[in-house]
Amino acid sequence: MIVDISKKILIVGLGLLGGSYARVLKRFGFHISAITKEQSSIDYALREKIIDEGSIELDERMIGEADIVIFALYPHVFVEWISENQKLLKSGALITDVTGVKGSIVYRIQNMLRHDVEFIAAHPMAGREVSGVENSTDKIFAGANYIVTPTSKNTPEAIQTCMELGRLLGFSNVTTLSPEEHDEMIGFLSQLTHCIAITLMTCNDKEDMEKFTGDSFRDLTRIARINDQMWSELFVENKTALLEQMDLFISKFNELRGMLESEDIDGMRRMMRHSTERRALFDKK
Amino acid sequence: MIVDISKKILIVGLGLLGGSYARVLKRFGFHISAITKEQSSIDYALREKIIDEGSIELDERMIGEADIVIFALYPHVFVEWISENQKLLKSGALITDVTGVKGSIVYRIQNMLRHDVEFIAAHPMAGREVSGVENSTDKIFAGANYIVTPTSKNTPEAIQTCMELGRLLGFSNVTTLSPEEHDEMIGFLSQLTHCIAITLMTCNDKEDMEKFTGDSFRDLTRIARINDQMWSELFVENKTALLEQMDLFISKFNELRGMLESEDIDGMRRMMRHSTERRALFDKK
Repeated sequence: MIVDISKKILIVGLGLLGGSYARVLKRFGFHISAITKEQSSIDYALREKIIDEGSIELDERMIGEADIVIFALYPHVFVEWISENQKLLKSGALITDVTGVKGSIVYRIQNMLRHDVEFIAAHPMAGREVSGVENSTDKIFAGANYIVTPTSKNTPEAIQTCMELGRLLGFSNVTTLSPEEHDEMIGFLSQLTHCIAITLMTCNDKEDMEKFTGDSFRDLTRIARINDQMWSELFVENKTALLEQMDLFISKFNELRGMLESEDIDGMRRMMRHSTERRALFDKK
Repeated sequence: MIVDISKKILIVGLGLLGGSYARVLKRFGFHISAITKEQSSIDYALREKIIDEGSIELDERMIGEADIVIFALYPHVFVEWISENQKLLKSGALITDVTGVKGSIVYRIQNMLRHDVEFIAAHPMAGREVSGVENSTDKIFAGANYIVTPTSKNTPEAIQTCMELGRLLGFSNVTTLSPEEHDEMIGFLSQLTHCIAITLMTCNDKEDMEKFTGDSFRDLTRIARINDQMWSELFVENKTALLEQMDLFISKFNELRGMLESEDIDGMRRMMRHSTERRALFDKK
């Protein structure tokens, strides 16, 4: 194990993800502290013994003692926190995050960060449709992807430590991508699908449709139930990559519309066969 | 029971749906015959005792004896069959179907049909991702919708009989809609979702995306594995209604794109809250 258990880990933002991190890492024997907004979250986490100590204040001792700091905050809150409070970090500390967009965050943080502290970004692709430390669990990481997005400013040691953290947490696939590759992938696989689901859910308000709804429609709109604060921020933070993916989708959708209008059955069947073949790649292994 | 079991039922097209109909109706004690393309389908159905007799020919006695004829064919094959072979039907026979589009079929059939035979259209909204009588089952109707689409040419008795048939088959919801209401509903809930799934699946062929795929993307593309012959025909048969639904979707999607481009967070959050509220209506009861 590269990350030795004498390291003190601080989690900033004790919600669903931060709480799930704490739950798993505490079991390995790490000293876990937490700083978060609500006293009730701290109380719950202490009672459940998933943290050793916690505070709703900027506890200088707690921050100054942490060897590894994991930020599980909204993107803009994370950037503000570093800008205002990085002076409190321990010299030599390693900081990482859980932010779902990378290009717009990683460079901003690395460029403003003290030179004796290193930021290595990561995106744990796990979540639930509920939030809060009370819903945290050690079961959301199995089968999921953990993506580290290093830049030229990162040391090999930090990259290794961050990947090791992903393995300790129980992620099935721990890989690296550049921030740009990450954002394109996330723009397509996650953000575009959410854009489609909310559009489908809001484009026709005709009454009584639900009476006739089958599984296909339910499958396509499951994620149409969405945290508007978080996703609108993630969309804007990944604007360039997401607009590109939306345009690829619109262009292909219009192509299909054109084929239907001109009754180009051969063209539609070609597209459907392409779709069928490509979908086979995406089956769960 | 309105449909008495002394009635002889003929199923034309013994595939997944036709076979599933036969399986359930035979159990009630009806005399079931079948006409289909492949001898192997007839052999299987006889062996499994889900039909009493079957043929791959236009068996004049079999057709002439049937009180109820259920057509489970592709739309254009159904229309051709009636046009060429309706002379063989018994006087007073009731015919129905399983076709997934209505406006373009119902009036065409009713207008060409002999006056001593009645056509009452129905759409059993059930299916599987596999086909053929060998995959037929009596389990696909529970929880599903069965929609009868009467016109002014239909008698109350035929409508009642057709609805009773849906209940006997085990459908949970048996209702009526006009052919036009049906096509709008199907255009939105089923055909538009398939258009979206195949577009999403084919709009970005970048390699290795499958490595990072999560449940959201899999949910949205499950139906991207599609029978190209059947769906291209259903799309064209419902062209007007489907184009209308596609345009509603494109317009809303472009609205979202515009809000993202101008970073209109409030607008996006309003749309997401609308989506979240509306999705609650579509939860399984």
